[in-house]
Amino acid sequence: MEYQLLPMIGSPQELNSLSNEQLVQLAAEIRESLCEIVSDRPAHFASNLGVVELCLALHLVFDFSKDRLIWDTGHQIYPHKLITGRFPAFNTIRRRGGLMGYPNPEESEYDLFMTGHAGSSVSTSLGLKAGDDLVRPDENRKSVAVIGDGALPSGIVFEAFNNAVGLKKDLLVVLNDNKMGICPRVGGVAEYLDKARAAKFYNGLKRDVSWLLNKVPVVGEPAAERIGSFKDALKSFLHGGMLFEEMGFRYVGPVDGHDINALRRYLELVKEIKGPVLLHVFTEKGHGFSPAAENPVKFHTPSPFCRDSDDGTPVFTKKDSKPAYTNVVSDEIHSLMQKDRRVCVMTAAMCEGNNLGQIRKDFPDRFFDVGICESHAVAFAAGMAKVGMRPIVDIYSTFLQRSFDQIFQEVALQNLPVLFCMDRAGICGPDGPTHHGLFDNSYMRVFPNIAIMAPGDQHDVAPMLKLAMEHDGPTSIRYPKANAELIDRTVAPIELGKSEVYRWGEDGTFVAFGSLFSTCVLAAERLAKDGLDIGVINARFLRPLDTDVIFKALQETGFVVTIEENTLNGGFGSAVLEAANDAGIPTQHLKRLGIPDRFIEHGERGELLSDLGLDVAGLMSTAHDLASKTTVDQQVAS
Amino acid sequence: MEYQLLPMIGSPQELNSLSNEQLVQLAAEIRESLCEIVSDRPAHFASNLGVVELCLALHLVFDFSKDRLIWDTGHQIYPHKLITGRFPAFNTIRRRGGLMGYPNPEESEYDLFMTGHAGSSVSTSLGLKAGDDLVRPDENRKSVAVIGDGALPSGIVFEAFNNAVGLKKDLLVVLNDNKMGICPRVGGVAEYLDKARAAKFYNGLKRDVSWLLNKVPVVGEPAAERIGSFKDALKSFLHGGMLFEEMGFRYVGPVDGHDINALRRYLELVKEIKGPVLLHVFTEKGHGFSPAAENPVKFHTPSPFCRDSDDGTPVFTKKDSKPAYTNVVSDEIHSLMQKDRRVCVMTAAMCEGNNLGQIRKDFPDRFFDVGICESHAVAFAAGMAKVGMRPIVDIYSTFLQRSFDQIFQEVALQNLPVLFCMDRAGICGPDGPTHHGLFDNSYMRVFPNIAIMAPGDQHDVAPMLKLAMEHDGPTSIRYPKANAELIDRTVAPIELGKSEVYRWGEDGTFVAFGSLFSTCVLAAERLAKDGLDIGVINARFLRPLDTDVIFKALQETGFVVTIEENTLNGGFGSAVLEAANDAGIPTQHLKRLGIPDRFIEHGERGELLSDLGLDVAGLMSTAHDLASKTTVDQQVAS
Repeated sequence: MEYQLLPMIGSPQELNSLSNEQLVQLAAEIRESLCEIVSDRPAHFASNLGVVELCLALHLVFDFSKDRLIWDTGHQIYPHKLITGRFPAFNTIRRRGGLMGYPNPEESEYDLFMTGHAGSSVSTSLGLKAGDDLVRPDENRKSVAVIGDGALPSGIVFEAFNNAVGLKKDLLVVLNDNKMGICPRVGGVAEYLDKARAAKFYNGLKRDVSWLLNKVPVVGEPAAERIGSFKDALKSFLHGGMLFEEMGFRYVGPVDGHDINALRRYLELVKEIKGPVLLHVFTEKGHGFSPAAENPVKFHTPSPFCRDSDDGTPVFTKKDSKPAYTNVVSDEIHSLMQKDRRVCVMTAAMCEGNNLGQIRKDFPDRFFDVGICESHAVAFAAGMAKVGMRPIVDIYSTFLQRSFDQIFQEVALQNLPVLFCMDRAGICGPDGPTHHGLFDNSYMRVFPNIAIMAPGDQHDVAPMLKLAMEHDGPTSIRYPKANAELIDRTVAPIELGKSEVYRWGEDGTFVAFGSLFSTCVLAAERLAKDGLDIGVINARFLRPLDTDVIFKALQETGFVVTIEENTLNGGFGSAVLEAANDAGIPTQHLKRLGIPDRFIEHGERGELLSDLGLDVAGLMSTAHDLASKTTVDQQVAS
Repeated sequence: MEYQLLPMIGSPQELNSLSNEQLVQLAAEIRESLCEIVSDRPAHFASNLGVVELCLALHLVFDFSKDRLIWDTGHQIYPHKLITGRFPAFNTIRRRGGLMGYPNPEESEYDLFMTGHAGSSVSTSLGLKAGDDLVRPDENRKSVAVIGDGALPSGIVFEAFNNAVGLKKDLLVVLNDNKMGICPRVGGVAEYLDKARAAKFYNGLKRDVSWLLNKVPVVGEPAAERIGSFKDALKSFLHGGMLFEEMGFRYVGPVDGHDINALRRYLELVKEIKGPVLLHVFTEKGHGFSPAAENPVKFHTPSPFCRDSDDGTPVFTKKDSKPAYTNVVSDEIHSLMQKDRRVCVMTAAMCEGNNLGQIRKDFPDRFFDVGICESHAVAFAAGMAKVGMRPIVDIYSTFLQRSFDQIFQEVALQNLPVLFCMDRAGICGPDGPTHHGLFDNSYMRVFPNIAIMAPGDQHDVAPMLKLAMEHDGPTSIRYPKANAELIDRTVAPIELGKSEVYRWGEDGTFVAFGSLFSTCVLAAERLAKDGLDIGVINARFLRPLDTDVIFKALQETGFVVTIEENTLNGGFGSAVLEAANDAGIPTQHLKRLGIPDRFIEHGERGELLSDLGLDVAGLMSTAHDLASKTTVDQQVAS
């Protein structure tokens, strides 16, 4: 397909001159552009296919150079990027230095917030509206949040609804209801929306009940007003939006999210309604590309594929290689669940991402997908732990930040045996700053009681999980979005608070906490060829810290470098520094490597680690620097 | 009043033998006991008066030696403590070493979770039920969460509701609806509950509409089933519980929360209902003591008072001295708001605790009480900041943990000028571990971009707030629940990243971040009399850290002691240690004082600080130790 219209759309203003037919053509070109991208790299696909018409209609009805638009979660931002001046750069998306796969205020004035964690759009949109009303009260700028049904159960959405109704602000929440988040939706809200969807097919009933409405008797003066709201209640019941109406929102819809004209009409209508409004839009994830519509989970972020020249069937060009640590962990959890009936698993709508499908299938009574509700997941797990279960909370490191206070009150303070499996801990790749897991070493060790672990390679995973299931208190294990290495060695048994000395070296020591252990091993091997005798310690535990071995390295080898994929603020290296300082061990030859005090952009994991000096070359260079400095120090001392 | 029944109640089982009259008498004795406590010390009062009958009825209908009971937020636990074997120890409540003012599993098997942060009870109760059903499926243990209407809008409650409906678990949520949290309730849920309360007075209407229900026509076969649920909808609309019914809960009530017989009847009824049920109970905060019922905000945690011997009127025995830092900050915010129309304030239902009443009165359009919704508060503030406002989020340090992920995504990542005023940062006193603010130095510095401040005394407050309002990025200020000192000196102007040298001393240096600056000044004065010349630095900033001055102290004075009311894990002292290590400055004479890696019990602030070596005597002792060690080191070196 040749792009005829898309290259002409430099800004959303230019949409207004297009005819209906041209808008349909533009939608097709946007979809073509999405297909091109995913033929080349993993990228969010089905969700973007689903919002093409919604995106166009929003930009047609509102002027987002003044009005405010937040795309919740943000991975459905592609059509928006394509029509806000970023078509020319679109093939750089998700590449280091290129466009981000999420909204990015640095790219465009049309991107207001960098989003990636779900559910906060209603809060920020309400803030934008409340702020605009104070800062520029005469302009009556509109504020719109587009939120998926997957994000809807997030607690913060409910908090924002509560506040929006209290403030009576003109706020438009567009519910992009495609029947799922990344995984099929679950829970009460999901059931509710399923009923609403079913209600669509009862349109005939509306006529019948309109008749009923006119029959509602007035039963005396005091009740008259009550009967008025009773009619309202009936009406919204028939609309299927009573839940939202009860909360105090006006509910409008449902409307077909692939009918641009219908969407424009509804949006024009709700634009004028006073107070908070929810517009319920039915979309189809993967719309316009039937393999994706039929299997939206698979096509959420598919591996690159080409379309067969005959019938367009997707032909995957690379093997679908899942991040192996995730699989190693989920396999081990599966195995634990077979042996121990106390073990159960919580996921926050990441059954697919955490590779828990087999567990869901084989242990349905001990598998709990709570939806995008990380706070609840942790408190719920604590309740189960209290009565004798051994819950495993399997959540990406960055999303577990939502549970910080529950980690405090419900788990650490009660000292309950909950295990946090923190997937995607470290540099996460093309998703960028909202998805990197660069803070958990620091935030997990803030609160007392939690034993904090990271496997050095695949060998460590099973025994660490086993230890967690036997430990009388909270535990956590972090692992990256990467293949799990198998480092050839006689593996030392896992013991609480004990590190593993992979090799001892006189000239200096690498102490790796988790994912970069194999990098250290490689670097030490190469350094040996340069004549440097560098030891490697697989730290395994951040708490309890193996001070015996680490202090020995500090006192008896040339230098110690701590290595972690975590911010240097209060992370593993700081724990070592603190412990040494408390014990009176000199630390002038201790160097901490990790993530500096800034947010890290998107790019391939390897690229970014290399930029940060956390690859073999970086470690070698650090070691050479330290070795020469140590030599100078010794010369000065002697 | 003499206690006749209360001393006989060694466990809740003994309630079963009491007659109705005796239960009424017991309720009166419980209230008397509550009055006695508050005559002696500040303690939670009105909320406890309000749940006396509810507590008795729950223990009569359920057997919580097997069934599970969680009191959300926990400060209404006193009647429960009195009838679960703790009457003899009751006069120790809120004293160091005595009973805790919140549930405490170490005190009693009837206290399952130490609660203090609102809203997590539904999650943990659901977890207890799900766990019991797996661990001991034959026992059908019941699970009950009692939650106030103030906590109801917390996002985690909605998340738990969503999951409970999905799991179809038998869970009883008792909504203790007293029309307020600590402060009058606000927002959509509040309006909703107000309507439900009004509905109580429309009982006559129910009869009329029952008639209507029987008139609903059957409009053909396909709609018949639909009409069935239509009748359900009408019924729950009349009950006032449609919001909960729509979410998938069975709604029962409302019931008078001071009528033990009615409560028992309703509880017996809901005990047998399958699936999640919400029982709506109307209580009166302060019930049974009219001054408290009339002014429940004042009597939430009143200053100690006696009852006038004639008519029982409360006579306050101590002046109601509010925590002065709180007042200094709120006064300064008020003053900023007068001068700068961009300044607005968010509170999470702590208008009273944060002393924001005058601001609410004088600037209603720029004052936002969002309810107990800390996550939303921060994202909402970020939205306002984005369009030009200067929001101040005024939340206790410990409760701001709920916003950890919004501090990350909505504020730090977007680098928006939101100011966090973290009240109650440090040892908080008799409320204990759920209320101490001992972690924010560590968690605030995990994420990039936030300038982190703490005033050394009252002089620092106004200029720090001013700096925050001018700073182009996020900022935070922490201050304790304590009187703000005024330290006599020529106050150095506040400058981003600059500390204040109060005095320089050759023998060593105290570097205080925030609240303990005055303690350091006193200790240094006394140490001077012992012949030690100790400097004192008012650090003011954790980020940017004033490395110039602190490194100079490290290099040129005998020792440096960092002092903070925060965990030693990754706090201010660690930031100093990290910076010095990065710069190659030796740290063997650096000592970090703060909170050790364990939870801190309840007690008076002064008592606890003294236990922790964070009083004048403790600092002096540390200084003497370090000075003698330094001398030995010097002797060895020479």
